[in-house]
Amino acid sequence: MLRVGVIGATGYTGEEIIKILARHKDVKITVLQAVVESEAPISKIFPQLAGKIDLVCKKPDVKKAKDSADLFFLALPHTVSMSVAPEFLKEGKKVIDLSADYRLDVNEYEKWYGVKHKDALNIKKAVYGLPELFRDKIKKAKLVANPGCYPTGASLGALPLVKAGLIDLSTIIVDAKSGATGAGRKAHISLSFSEVNENVKAYKINEHQHKPEIAMVIGGVAKEAVNIVFVPHLIPVNRGILSTVYMDLDRDVGALKINQIYEDFYRKEPFVRVMEEGELPALRDVQHTNFCNIGIKVTGKKVIAVSCIDNLLKGAAGQAVQNMNIMCGFTEGEGL
Amino acid sequence: MLRVGVIGATGYTGEEIIKILARHKDVKITVLQAVVESEAPISKIFPQLAGKIDLVCKKPDVKKAKDSADLFFLALPHTVSMSVAPEFLKEGKKVIDLSADYRLDVNEYEKWYGVKHKDALNIKKAVYGLPELFRDKIKKAKLVANPGCYPTGASLGALPLVKAGLIDLSTIIVDAKSGATGAGRKAHISLSFSEVNENVKAYKINEHQHKPEIAMVIGGVAKEAVNIVFVPHLIPVNRGILSTVYMDLDRDVGALKINQIYEDFYRKEPFVRVMEEGELPALRDVQHTNFCNIGIKVTGKKVIAVSCIDNLLKGAAGQAVQNMNIMCGFTEGEGL
Amino acid sequence: MLRVGVIGATGYTGEEIIKILARHKDVKITVLQAVVESEAPISKIFPQLAGKIDLVCKKPDVKKAKDSADLFFLALPHTVSMSVAPEFLKEGKKVIDLSADYRLDVNEYEKWYGVKHKDALNIKKAVYGLPELFRDKIKKAKLVANPGCYPTGASLGALPLVKAGLIDLSTIIVDAKSGATGAGRKAHISLSFSEVNENVKAYKINEHQHKPEIAMVIGGVAKEAVNIVFVPHLIPVNRGILSTVYMDLDRDVGALKINQIYEDFYRKEPFVRVMEEGELPALRDVQHTNFCNIGIKVTGKKVIAVSCIDNLLKGAAGQAVQNMNIMCGFTEGEGL
Amino acid sequence: MLRVGVIGATGYTGEEIIKILARHKDVKITVLQAVVESEAPISKIFPQLAGKIDLVCKKPDVKKAKDSADLFFLALPHTVSMSVAPEFLKEGKKVIDLSADYRLDVNEYEKWYGVKHKDALNIKKAVYGLPELFRDKIKKAKLVANPGCYPTGASLGALPLVKAGLIDLSTIIVDAKSGATGAGRKAHISLSFSEVNENVKAYKINEHQHKPEIAMVIGGVAKEAVNIVFVPHLIPVNRGILSTVYMDLDRDVGALKINQIYEDFYRKEPFVRVMEEGELPALRDVQHTNFCNIGIKVTGKKVIAVSCIDNLLKGAAGQAVQNMNIMCGFTEGEGL
Repeated sequence: MLRVGVIGATGYTGEEIIKILARHKDVKITVLQAVVESEAPISKIFPQLAGKIDLVCKKPDVKKAKDSADLFFLALPHTVSMSVAPEFLKEGKKVIDLSADYRLDVNEYEKWYGVKHKDALNIKKAVYGLPELFRDKIKKAKLVANPGCYPTGASLGALPLVKAGLIDLSTIIVDAKSGATGAGRKAHISLSFSEVNENVKAYKINEHQHKPEIAMVIGGVAKEAVNIVFVPHLIPVNRGILSTVYMDLDRDVGALKINQIYEDFYRKEPFVRVMEEGELPALRDVQHTNFCNIGIKVTGKKVIAVSCIDNLLKGAAGQAVQNMNIMCGFTEGEGL
Repeated sequence: MLRVGVIGATGYTGEEIIKILARHKDVKITVLQAVVESEAPISKIFPQLAGKIDLVCKKPDVKKAKDSADLFFLALPHTVSMSVAPEFLKEGKKVIDLSADYRLDVNEYEKWYGVKHKDALNIKKAVYGLPELFRDKIKKAKLVANPGCYPTGASLGALPLVKAGLIDLSTIIVDAKSGATGAGRKAHISLSFSEVNENVKAYKINEHQHKPEIAMVIGGVAKEAVNIVFVPHLIPVNRGILSTVYMDLDRDVGALKINQIYEDFYRKEPFVRVMEEGELPALRDVQHTNFCNIGIKVTGKKVIAVSCIDNLLKGAAGQAVQNMNIMCGFTEGEGL
Repeated sequence: MLRVGVIGATGYTGEEIIKILARHKDVKITVLQAVVESEAPISKIFPQLAGKIDLVCKKPDVKKAKDSADLFFLALPHTVSMSVAPEFLKEGKKVIDLSADYRLDVNEYEKWYGVKHKDALNIKKAVYGLPELFRDKIKKAKLVANPGCYPTGASLGALPLVKAGLIDLSTIIVDAKSGATGAGRKAHISLSFSEVNENVKAYKINEHQHKPEIAMVIGGVAKEAVNIVFVPHLIPVNRGILSTVYMDLDRDVGALKINQIYEDFYRKEPFVRVMEEGELPALRDVQHTNFCNIGIKVTGKKVIAVSCIDNLLKGAAGQAVQNMNIMCGFTEGEGL
Repeated sequence: MLRVGVIGATGYTGEEIIKILARHKDVKITVLQAVVESEAPISKIFPQLAGKIDLVCKKPDVKKAKDSADLFFLALPHTVSMSVAPEFLKEGKKVIDLSADYRLDVNEYEKWYGVKHKDALNIKKAVYGLPELFRDKIKKAKLVANPGCYPTGASLGALPLVKAGLIDLSTIIVDAKSGATGAGRKAHISLSFSEVNENVKAYKINEHQHKPEIAMVIGGVAKEAVNIVFVPHLIPVNRGILSTVYMDLDRDVGALKINQIYEDFYRKEPFVRVMEEGELPALRDVQHTNFCNIGIKVTGKKVIAVSCIDNLLKGAAGQAVQNMNIMCGFTEGEGL
């Protein structure tokens, strides 16, 4: 039984990690910590968990935490993780960080997040936790930077064709539609029900901090710097991201061939489902699962790949547990 | 042209008042004030209003306001209105207060709102702005206490039978379902989209501050103190309250007769629509209107009256303008 | 490995049964049947299931079905089950029927469902599948009549006080708020998104076919005929029922004592969670789970019990599997 | 007082036309017709209208209709209008057709709608009712083809730059997000609440019948054939379309200059609001209005124009009344 801690247990992502771990047969949650006014059983904060786990969620205390668990999920805000992760790493603990702190290189991070990075040492050792690209490195990783929700959906939608070298890399547009839990569990008028319901809006066009992360993943596979256009939208659903990815082919390829490329690329992947040619995914097909469903439409030289994920699962907690399973030699889908 | 001011212009209620007044042919909005970080055209705050009104929303300043308008809508939080209203009243201005500050008597107010009342003088002169009961008094009023949203829906559902003396007054239960704008425009995790969507909950059972107001209205008509059970629920819609009102008849009366009593009671009312016997209202039938729709079901001695209003209109801004129209001798439905 | 069949696999309830059984370690789904235009893998109908189960959903054929499985879930419409169930029962198969066909006695059934009952023999042998009341009988049952969604939520909210003999049985009101999946997976304008969204309505007041079922369960415990008032409402959520149950105490009992009665009644129940005194449940606390959460408020002689269930799980598929687990000696919560 | 008829009065579009006309000071509704099971007051079908209009909705009968009104709105399905319109036109009546029957040329129509066109005569005389392009022609028109909802939003978003000749016309992508009323008022499982809520999906990629209409409008201004990529999505809101329009500039132009082009293009338009540079529109800013709000973001050579309309108003009924106002010399915004 691996002893596992969740630091930052009171956000939506924390809740989902706990739900998954509570039914995971190879691990035991031994530590829950978060910035709370008073310490209380986690089931007081998330009544969903009552009867499943009754651990008390404690205030943050790295020292107490590190003796009690072997692997830690950091479900912390950006800029906080990089102060906490080194404390666990130097004790030989494994860390899966769900913030953005270890995803980019230092320059990009400082440019997009507007703060100085405090842990240049570990950022170089961190493995980007997209199993479909980096499973072998994740197996050996001590520190996994769990991908952002938008980058997971967008990258999985684009990668097969990028890898196949069939795309004019200057033409990639990601038009993403995200549910409200993507913004986290917080009080803000713009996130209130009365503002989000019966509404849709684009925001942070090409200025969203997930843009460089998508470009990094795609550029890594393309083996050259890639510029993308990224337009996120907030839609009135709780969970999920549908990404419509537009790409121009640089030569003539048929629709069936394109679909075959996706199927081949993901054939062995346990959590990516490629739709049959002519079919398109819907968000509800993946909600409450760790799957990414992808449908592809080819029209002339334009490829439109539509990918759907549950932002809290494949886009966060589910992928984090998938990474833990890979790091620890468990069945990759255990708990998921 | 009556010059009108809106104090507290940046809440949902303020927005609706402005929308109605902007199309009202007998008035001109001359003052908008609210607690804002910086003064800006109201259409910056509510883009819906762009092209319709371009007045600047100023910071609160009673002195400046009172020279510029003849009638004021106070869309202010409870406990704030009672400091502002007297300033306008002593200058001979008319005031329609949408807070709770002038609805109850001083004792009830202090008990339910937990603060000392500061304007005992005017509270006695205030007229409770339910036109269906108090139209004649409203005509002559200087200060109208605009009813709460729950009390409007619940009272209109119960009053005909209470007035007819057919009800066992100890049996009244109001089970109300309200949309999220009822809580106002504010940042709170419990009001965030991710918490309210795909959810429903009861709250403040029999402890909601609108309970004494409902009891006051019904008790006033019954001419005796009335105890009610009031259970509000938050449902995932933006606008509207559906109130299911349970009452026991104290004698045998047929369903058709009961329906007739409602029809007679509201025959001349421009904004109450009684459904035909056997029909029930739905929230969408009244959204974006100032109507209250009522359907009645009789089963044995139990009467179930279902009333629907748009909480921002008949439950707030619409009724406030209806009251202004009555106070000023305009057509009662002008602008509505 | 128990071989299990699902007859009527293409409704929302069928989908949920399949999802649960697919992760159940003691059973194997061997038969799926439904009225479909053409036979296809179930994952074509419910893309959620892709990669989890790839069984073909066949057209209805009792003969073929009965050789392939030992226990059958009938997720069929009312009036259809009673023609199908006897075929399986006479072969010694176990049947869990999710329709209403075996819940009431013949007279009540014919009165409320408007058709002649065709299987008077088995209706007498059927056990009503509410484990909290009838676990011992369910253990030995060949035919379980799985409770309706409204009756499950309403009964669990009322039973502890009814059993304790503290209630004036003439005062029970159930004001229930249900999500749209409760109406099943079908095409009807009144169920279309544009009609249900941003709306709420009461329907079939005291004329809903679940009323006699609630009265039967409560009356069975009270050991006398009970009349209730039942007012269902349709609210814009997908899953779940919140039932607000009003009951008058027939003597003075304190709130803490009342809460204690609920806690005692459900102490050993794996799927009922009684909230602490002063706390109320929300629908989201039970969605996607088999739990029923109950909170109780006492005010004077009035008790208001608020119960929440997921209508597709504790209100249908989850409870059906719970019943299977009890009938077959599996761990009661396996798969749930 | 112009006498007006609405043929096809029982869809969402019909309802909105009636609501607008009921408050329009220059017209009187004299005829309502639709395919109904039995003739009934329109307020029975749309309870919103009770107390505002009590006209009976009759079964379709062109002969009876044409004597009673001077102008007709045809809110009929595609392929039906072209049989009805000629009957009114030959009597000298004015017709505003909200179907697609008179929008395209015969070839395109037959290709995309899959039926033979029956009224080649009038299709040539019809004026496409986009006031921002064709106001002068609309003034003199006898038959106006009211634009589709997607084409209205998409075209208004793209036209200023197309007109300015700054766009590489081969790069236009329209990624549109529409509410469910866009599909009309009908019973279909894919439109049921349980399927649309908490969901989003792309559909008919580049195969939607509004694609050639968008291409026609843009191509008409560009004065050359234009190919576009059109990807519609269904999102869980009732009303509105947000269109994200991607276009490549063919030379270097600054963001401020681009915004200026939009402002100049729409300066005199009563129902188009261009946001300030750096601001983006939200659906809620235009719901229940006839406005189209447009925000523009320039990033490198890519322009992203985001336009929002209420699909039932600027996308259908509102624009139809705007066209009537232009045709009849009324104030263009009367009733709107």
